[in-house]
Amino acid sequence: MAVTNSLIEQKLKTAEEVAALLPQQVTLGCSGFTPAGYPKLIPVAFAKRIEDEKKLGKEFSINLYAGASTGEELDGALARTGALKLRIPYQSNSHLRNLINQGETDFIDMHLSHVVKYIEHGILPKIDVAIVEAIDVTADGKIYLSTSSGMSATYIRNAESIYIELTDTHPLELKGYHDIYLPNHHEKGLPINILTPGDRIGLPYIQVPPDKIKGIVRSNKPDAATVFKTPDEDCQNIAAHVLSFIQHEIKKGRIPKEYLPFQNGVGNIANAVLASMAKDPNFHSIQMYTEVVQDSVFDLIDAGKLDIASTSALTFSEAGLKRFHNNISEWKSKFVIRPQEISNHPEVIRRMGLIAMNTAIEVDIYGNVNSTHVMGTSMMNGIGGSGDFTRNSHLCIFMTPSLAKEGNISAVVPMVSHTDHNEHSTMIFVTEQGLADLRGCPPKKRAELIINNCAHPIYRDKLREYYENALRVSKGKHTPHDLEKALSWHVQFLKTGSMK
Amino acid sequence: MAVTNSLIEQKLKTAEEVAALLPQQVTLGCSGFTPAGYPKLIPVAFAKRIEDEKKLGKEFSINLYAGASTGEELDGALARTGALKLRIPYQSNSHLRNLINQGETDFIDMHLSHVVKYIEHGILPKIDVAIVEAIDVTADGKIYLSTSSGMSATYIRNAESIYIELTDTHPLELKGYHDIYLPNHHEKGLPINILTPGDRIGLPYIQVPPDKIKGIVRSNKPDAATVFKTPDEDCQNIAAHVLSFIQHEIKKGRIPKEYLPFQNGVGNIANAVLASMAKDPNFHSIQMYTEVVQDSVFDLIDAGKLDIASTSALTFSEAGLKRFHNNISEWKSKFVIRPQEISNHPEVIRRMGLIAMNTAIEVDIYGNVNSTHVMGTSMMNGIGGSGDFTRNSHLCIFMTPSLAKEGNISAVVPMVSHTDHNEHSTMIFVTEQGLADLRGCPPKKRAELIINNCAHPIYRDKLREYYENALRVSKGKHTPHDLEKALSWHVQFLKTGSMK
Repeated sequence: MAVTNSLIEQKLKTAEEVAALLPQQVTLGCSGFTPAGYPKLIPVAFAKRIEDEKKLGKEFSINLYAGASTGEELDGALARTGALKLRIPYQSNSHLRNLINQGETDFIDMHLSHVVKYIEHGILPKIDVAIVEAIDVTADGKIYLSTSSGMSATYIRNAESIYIELTDTHPLELKGYHDIYLPNHHEKGLPINILTPGDRIGLPYIQVPPDKIKGIVRSNKPDAATVFKTPDEDCQNIAAHVLSFIQHEIKKGRIPKEYLPFQNGVGNIANAVLASMAKDPNFHSIQMYTEVVQDSVFDLIDAGKLDIASTSALTFSEAGLKRFHNNISEWKSKFVIRPQEISNHPEVIRRMGLIAMNTAIEVDIYGNVNSTHVMGTSMMNGIGGSGDFTRNSHLCIFMTPSLAKEGNISAVVPMVSHTDHNEHSTMIFVTEQGLADLRGCPPKKRAELIINNCAHPIYRDKLREYYENALRVSKGKHTPHDLEKALSWHVQFLKTGSMK
Repeated sequence: MAVTNSLIEQKLKTAEEVAALLPQQVTLGCSGFTPAGYPKLIPVAFAKRIEDEKKLGKEFSINLYAGASTGEELDGALARTGALKLRIPYQSNSHLRNLINQGETDFIDMHLSHVVKYIEHGILPKIDVAIVEAIDVTADGKIYLSTSSGMSATYIRNAESIYIELTDTHPLELKGYHDIYLPNHHEKGLPINILTPGDRIGLPYIQVPPDKIKGIVRSNKPDAATVFKTPDEDCQNIAAHVLSFIQHEIKKGRIPKEYLPFQNGVGNIANAVLASMAKDPNFHSIQMYTEVVQDSVFDLIDAGKLDIASTSALTFSEAGLKRFHNNISEWKSKFVIRPQEISNHPEVIRRMGLIAMNTAIEVDIYGNVNSTHVMGTSMMNGIGGSGDFTRNSHLCIFMTPSLAKEGNISAVVPMVSHTDHNEHSTMIFVTEQGLADLRGCPPKKRAELIINNCAHPIYRDKLREYYENALRVSKGKHTPHDLEKALSWHVQFLKTGSMK
């Protein structure tokens, strides 16, 4: 069921032909968001060309912009060429991560809601080429994106040349899922007119002048399917604490009975929370205003509990994608796919009053959160949308197992080695051990709650020892610290492989 | 020109009579914002009663909530009783600060835009008594506030008893300056209908059932006048860098020619920036959407450059207040005084795209900012609105002299000892030495710019030494740190009195 028309026929190229046209120094703006809807053929062909021509002494330099993380065929393939100089704004590819942490590739770790403005205002190197996966391009230049919106509309608008990977891996009924809308950053005072997660304020396609499209490559290569693990006991315990807390907040009148929209991070813990909501008879019609929807949304649909999910990407497993395809027409009213500036827009998030649930790498005894830097210096994936959501939601919940690396790392530490969300903005912490509600607590009370409720028992005495020593030696007793020892757990881990 | 009516006559009491009615365990919600419009007589009388009755063995315990900081007669007087157990959400009184840093008084350091919800949702101990300075109370219970809005409307709504300090220190023409509007936190999806800084969406008074008013005390005591120093050379240099940067951004098309609204922190640097704008022929009609307006606004008015200033408080010097009073009718269209949830509302800030200018205690080489904690443990004043504005503005600028304590402290350090604004959210740094534009820079580039442009020359070599060593020894090279030395500058200062 490959689409065709005069424009497509006229622009049709092979991936190798497009790859041959790309400049040696190039800034690429690609579709793709965590990791759905990214181009797969052109990047691989480009990587092949680079490898070939490097042998002839040619030099390449690539700045790669995408929505968030992408798949192996884009991030991995280009990273392996050694020509990747700069990547924004989020990544999760192991090869690319290594390059970043070896200092070989620059990475700018940005709030996802800031990227559009940084592009449009020329803060970052300007985009030469946009490469976008689409399910259709009409003869008059309407581009229908595949399973993510991300930054595609902005990259297309700002690129000199546009290349399309026209995928036949999704039914054309995907048309209509997208709501493409971007504010003009200098038209002062215009509200984003989204009042509930399902509101649509834009168009289901991106209109471009057809002559800006320089090539169209047919693709039958699916997104690298995400593999979801069955939630382990820790994940299930975390989910149980979260659900019971939400019910507590409803009883207290702080969340209305019909809930507030949920934002839910990526990964097994996040999935366990939604799966548990699907099973729990206390939870009924759920609205989501989030940046990524994963397979766990099917649990809600199966339980008849999903009202609407607003997202910037649909990231499914192979089986999940099949289910989605089978129900694609029926579910059109269940999903809205938005540009990441809108899925993560502080104005809309604050107005709707979300319940934000994100994972942490580590938290400290005063409620500061590290979401990005392993041992303070090595990039994990990036802050993604966690800052957008944490800072502006009604309620923000950080979740993490209390231990990592077979117990050699405590997720609760005296002082985080990098701060992505600070004590003023964070509220609720959950590990498999329990939940600490830090709202309305001065620092010393927070330390008690986090150590007693969230830290793993094998680290509690050591945390108390740090805290009690800090109380004695700290110059200021508002947020007591012993600055000589505040980062000593990380230092010890780097030297010995254990915080114990 | 003291106002009067049947309600006032019926409720009239002395400050001592009101003080005698206050419970020994009490949560007070007071007017006052940095430090304008706070009650002065009742707190002093209450402090006197506490001192007297403590001798008789009676025990007192006070939780004090205000808008932001208040004056000596409220924060100072109650702090000195030793009965102050908890203070929210911001303070600047030296006696109170000492108690906080000795661990005697708990302080919750909050984003000012979060306080209303924390009160209304019962996260914090509930308010027993509201004490509010007003210029008039009508017989049917309309309260006209004095020079600040802050948290008054919320404290009045949530208190069991209301006491008014009816001040005659302002002309009744102050009526009309306020715009009292508060969103209902559970009515999902309603926008705050402010599209430009001058929009008015509420009422100029707070309506209460008259019988909730338990006493009215006449006052002729003015706000403790703020004293402004003439900006020193450092402040003027910082202002010059800021102004030239704003013009640069206009040329680049990132700020429209008619500007974006300015938010401007408190203090001498902030005042120097506005004073310089007033003098600089490149700057014309200025709009402000900020939380405190100080005397420097007169420079803009004198130069014919002030369009509108939206604020939560008018904090003037003695001479400034006189000028304000002399022009109070004419200037009614120049000012709007809003509740702090609205002056600092993320939805409105993001929508209007402010230029936010705030001061830092210290910044680190990767662009993290400490606004609150001296040497990581002692509270200075609090985060105030700096998080609300920094996180959601179009442009955020942090300003600080590069040195403090006669050069024994460098404002640029390897790692901040407390993080209030992190690398993902900060953009522009300015000291008297110069300006660093960190937007679109990966961490290592940021370190170069901050060290070269902002650090004082006497600390540059030492910072480079830290950075170059970190590059060598750091496990991750994305954000290189030597965790054993990251806080060593602070440790050295605490031991020797100097970072040199």
